[in-house]
Amino acid sequence: MKPLNRRQLLQSLTLASGAYGFGALAADINLAGKSNPGAPANSWTYLALDCDRTAELAYQCHNRMSSCMYGVFASIITQLGEKVGEPYRSFPCEMMVYGEGGVAGWGTLCGTLNGGAAAISLLVRNETERKALIDELFSWYQNTSLPLYSPTQPFFKADLPAVKTDSVLCHASASNWSKKAKVSFYSPERKERCTRLSADTARKTVELLNSCFSGQSAKPIHLGERTTGCLSCHGKGGSQADVLIKSCNSCHFTDRQPHP
Amino acid sequence: MKPLNRRQLLQSLTLASGAYGFGALAADINLAGKSNPGAPANSWTYLALDCDRTAELAYQCHNRMSSCMYGVFASIITQLGEKVGEPYRSFPCEMMVYGEGGVAGWGTLCGTLNGGAAAISLLVRNETERKALIDELFSWYQNTSLPLYSPTQPFFKADLPAVKTDSVLCHASASNWSKKAKVSFYSPERKERCTRLSADTARKTVELLNSCFSGQSAKPIHLGERTTGCLSCHGKGGSQADVLIKSCNSCHFTDRQPHP
Repeated sequence: MKPLNRRQLLQSLTLASGAYGFGALAADINLAGKSNPGAPANSWTYLALDCDRTAELAYQCHNRMSSCMYGVFASIITQLGEKVGEPYRSFPCEMMVYGEGGVAGWGTLCGTLNGGAAAISLLVRNETERKALIDELFSWYQNTSLPLYSPTQPFFKADLPAVKTDSVLCHASASNWSKKAKVSFYSPERKERCTRLSADTARKTVELLNSCFSGQSAKPIHLGERTTGCLSCHGKGGSQADVLIKSCNSCHFTDRQPHP
Repeated sequence: MKPLNRRQLLQSLTLASGAYGFGALAADINLAGKSNPGAPANSWTYLALDCDRTAELAYQCHNRMSSCMYGVFASIITQLGEKVGEPYRSFPCEMMVYGEGGVAGWGTLCGTLNGGAAAISLLVRNETERKALIDELFSWYQNTSLPLYSPTQPFFKADLPAVKTDSVLCHASASNWSKKAKVSFYSPERKERCTRLSADTARKTVELLNSCFSGQSAKPIHLGERTTGCLSCHGKGGSQADVLIKSCNSCHFTDRQPHP
């Protein structure tokens, strides 16, 4: 194992001090009247991962559990389990299956992003850095034509178009893709598209993590002209101040016409 | 500790067999060419929790970390840490902070639901049961006037109106509440509303878990007339088949008018 860099050292110290740990929480709120059982000294050390390997693993993991959130999260954590050992190896990655279909088919947040954000949040404890990385991941996702990943041994062989997702929501992203690809949402093509998209999002997450832990700052995102325009009135400090959001796309700006 | 019931026993056996474990995954995909390191035999045993205590804890936890997702998740896992011990006690609950503001302020899935779904998914490994519980939680949320929780020592003293969320999305749910309450999204009233809402969602999640682990089946949800109507064409088997969703509210059916 390589020696810890400055960020990793600081993170380990923060965790070992119990600032975020179960012990500190239980003590302060006097849970069930028991005394502080002591904070675990687990350290979630990050070591740089290979982007190609991560993409391939996410593709396999997604398919294995039929879950995009699991695919992205497990591709990262299982590799750290191999490289670092505990506490990664006993992390119950399988809990992340719940994010598929925008959480159990509710079509909300794309599960690849839920999984990527969960992994970032486990590894990056500094609030500003965590949010900046999630911002960069989400912004990349909605501004990129996906999928990009091309598996050597695809689960379903097809030439799939890359389509700009234009949303971080599962329903909008996947329905938009199905429309452009001229296939049913319930087709093997759409299923394959989402499996490849797990590979893309896992790769991007690891790119961001590698960059962060090598000491580089996340790039500030541009919300785009439309969203910036909306937020000038509706965001914090605006005359309306009635909204917290970072993308108005897909719900408020679409080519949707009145229902026939 | 009470003896395991049938469901808990089956779950422990499944986990111990490594069907979902890291060991099985690493072996099958031949991660980095290494041999199966062996599956951990951790058992995520559930014991019935007190609903009032859960609500109070979620309210405290949310406020402590300024995160709804953390509030709901940590209120459940820390109690199981006290009652059961490991592996709950060393679970890094603090990773769940990422869900606040619909994930880092992106306004997507309400973080209380992201946290509730994550807890359900950690504890209920049967796919059908897991999805049914998440369905019931999400359906309860969007059809209930919230917040209901009334703290004995509120962080911000105010009489807050209970408003039907009508959406599982953070932005729609919270903006709608702010509008009805005639306060800014960035007001202490809205912040207090969301903190109390964590208490409500944590309580409901534990009600569902207690019921599930006492052997009762989740109630099938009714998607409502509007969504059922949409899905008759747009859902699986419909003439369009271009959508996976369980609620069309808030994005497609609102009182929104063309922007002035």
